[in-house]
Amino acid sequence: SWLSRAGAETRRGWPTVAAVLPAGGSGERMGVPTPKQFCPILERPLISYTLQALERVPWIKDIVVSVTGENMGTMNDIIQRYQHKHISLVEAGVTRHRSIFNGLKALADQSNAKLSKPEVVIIHDAVRPFVEEDVLLKVVTAAKEHGAAGAIRPLVSTVISPSANGCLDCSLDRDRYRASEMPQAFLFDVIYGAYQQCSEYDLEYGTECLQLALKYGHTKARLVEGSADLWKVTYKRDLYAAESIIKERTSKQIYIVMDRKDREEHIGVLLEEMLKNEVNNVKFTSGALCHVGRDLQPILSKQCYNFVCVNVMTSDFQETQELLNILKESNLSMLYPVVVISVHFHASESVPFGEKMENLMKIRECAKEAKKRNILLYGLLICYPQEEQKLQESLKQGVTIIDALVKERNFGLIGQLLVA
Amino acid sequence: SWLSRAGAETRRGWPTVAAVLPAGGSGERMGVPTPKQFCPILERPLISYTLQALERVPWIKDIVVSVTGENMGTMNDIIQRYQHKHISLVEAGVTRHRSIFNGLKALADQSNAKLSKPEVVIIHDAVRPFVEEDVLLKVVTAAKEHGAAGAIRPLVSTVISPSANGCLDCSLDRDRYRASEMPQAFLFDVIYGAYQQCSEYDLEYGTECLQLALKYGHTKARLVEGSADLWKVTYKRDLYAAESIIKERTSKQIYIVMDRKDREEHIGVLLEEMLKNEVNNVKFTSGALCHVGRDLQPILSKQCYNFVCVNVMTSDFQETQELLNILKESNLSMLYPVVVISVHFHASESVPFGEKMENLMKIRECAKEAKKRNILLYGLLICYPQEEQKLQESLKQGVTIIDALVKERNFGLIGQLLVA
Ligand SMILES: [Mg+2]
Ligand SMILES: [Mg+2]
Repeated sequence: SWLSRAGAETRRGWPTVAAVLPAGGSGERMGVPTPKQFCPILERPLISYTLQALERVPWIKDIVVSVTGENMGTMNDIIQRYQHKHISLVEAGVTRHRSIFNGLKALADQSNAKLSKPEVVIIHDAVRPFVEEDVLLKVVTAAKEHGAAGAIRPLVSTVISPSANGCLDCSLDRDRYRASEMPQAFLFDVIYGAYQQCSEYDLEYGTECLQLALKYGHTKARLVEGSADLWKVTYKRDLYAAESIIKERTSKQIYIVMDRKDREEHIGVLLEEMLKNEVNNVKFTSGALCHVGRDLQPILSKQCYNFVCVNVMTSDFQETQELLNILKESNLSMLYPVVVISVHFHASESVPFGEKMENLMKIRECAKEAKKRNILLYGLLICYPQEEQKLQESLKQGVTIIDALVKERNFGLIGQLLVA
Repeated sequence: SWLSRAGAETRRGWPTVAAVLPAGGSGERMGVPTPKQFCPILERPLISYTLQALERVPWIKDIVVSVTGENMGTMNDIIQRYQHKHISLVEAGVTRHRSIFNGLKALADQSNAKLSKPEVVIIHDAVRPFVEEDVLLKVVTAAKEHGAAGAIRPLVSTVISPSANGCLDCSLDRDRYRASEMPQAFLFDVIYGAYQQCSEYDLEYGTECLQLALKYGHTKARLVEGSADLWKVTYKRDLYAAESIIKERTSKQIYIVMDRKDREEHIGVLLEEMLKNEVNNVKFTSGALCHVGRDLQPILSKQCYNFVCVNVMTSDFQETQELLNILKESNLSMLYPVVVISVHFHASESVPFGEKMENLMKIRECAKEAKKRNILLYGLLICYPQEEQKLQESLKQGVTIIDALVKERNFGLIGQLLVA
């Protein structure tokens, strides 16, 4: 983080920064009744991911969100439920420009004690949840120097101009143009002045803030290359893509809770080795449960949302239950569903397989409880045959199942006992 | 289909049509080593979906695909494995325009007996798998009349022109421009003539066929509004989106195989009712297994890729096994993984639950066999308690599991026995 490099508050010349998020859209392009910023991804509304992305940037002081009157209640619920900070709500206008203008007015309003006028204001979209601190830093830095700045991307398609009768008039040289994306940033006085001077026509039909800064603020925006992840969630397929990206990001780390008994530890270690060999692009760490309580904060702050819990008491859930208690006390599952896989082993010489399965069925009740806290609990029973090759097959199958459960994050299969 | 309305071959004035698919791209934008047209979606390469979309249009006679020499073998394997018809391969050029030109040359080549020069040629992208017959019909009709036609979409982002120093020069009025998409269609002589006349610079740096037709063929293309699904799979997120769209489309129909015994039929009917009440946007049909063999073709031709098989012999898989045999004889699972859920019931008064589960574990071996034919087999054991309310809960849980299995189409969880 930039903060850790320089110490934002004290860095000489670093401006005060606020953000405005127009979120008054109706989502008609999605073909769904819910406005897209409120569409759920893993049961959490899209806009909450965007707020989270802005909140974790320590040098953004205030975030002003414009929402329509009818969605004010929904928005307040989201802020409460996901514990968003530094958010102020203002009423959206009927167009995007009017919504942004309302946000700027709230920041400039001297009678509003909660907000104060920033030196630089970021304008972002509620439906671009993957904005990184890096690009925010770049547009703010450029805005401080040039008055205005915006993220751009290469064009994916050629842009053409149709004639009045629906025929091709000309096609633009793709290399000479760019798509204007968000975030953008402005010296507050530049963009606020532009909105105060612009026409009703601009407010009604315009969409491009950089254009207002150019036309009314006589400020040529600096253009900053953004990453592909800045794209705007527009169609239903974009919601699918966003969900897959979030699933991918939350499945990058798995913590393996090992128990303390020697024999079982042995097979736990074999499972860990197999996981590390077979699953790519995932970071595995492990530790005994007795240490987890102490070491929980570092693990959780590393954004690890997946736990494989190797149980010593094969017909019992002691370790898993302790882990669930620790997770419930933390806030880890507030923002993302946390996957917990309770692993048990069955050695062929001991109790009958069916009996062992039956004993483990109580996981269904635990899973129902855990689900209330956004924890997705699954059981995994791994056969532990004497024969080396068969054991390898069992472990490999167990790895396949763990990988599938972590990557899919499926709500419908919680409480199931899977068998490897 | 248009064919069923008019009879393509005999429709007066309908032109002969071929398609050219440039597929020489390297996929550098994806950030993955595999060129994007060969990236797997549900284990099948993206380009195969696109070929399938073109093949099902009866009036497209030939499909010419340009691939690089190093991918020629891969492409031949794809054609064989997924039984694609009417495909000819030509060597791709180093640019998109050169690849298209090579495809056109092959169609015009009088010494090539397999291909003949069509009246109209469609140009499409290998990475736009969701093209519908409707838009193909529109561009071909317009090309026949105007000489050239292309699909367009509204711009999602404002297009801007940067100055040499990376600042905003101007932003284009979004309403006056469109994104040029695919498919496009041309009178063969217009586009072939344009490629023959155009400069090396055009072939090296140009991308827009409509522009060539305008500049060298003096033909103003007719622009046709396309659907959002025409978008080009460009980034990794687009692959995610495509996979979700395919999963959604293949989960729209479920066939319930009912057995013949009265008592079991009763609970099968209860399950069917619950499915119809609880699962939205899915069409359910049902029938006894003895009729399935006879009626299979109509069911399969309706693109039903999901089967819930209610078994009469609760510790046996007789019905499921028969269904699997029928499916294996058909070609249904060649293009999409077919989901089969083998449903069993457990009445509390009969054998112990654990024993019942153990008996059903043989489904794992069946699933391994079925997987070789791209059939995803899962088991579902539904408890059948006397108490009405508990029975409702079991059935509802069963419905949740069926819904999750059909929608996720998960390869890692095949052979699992899920419990409701
Ligand atoms: Mg104030
Ligand atoms: Mg020929």
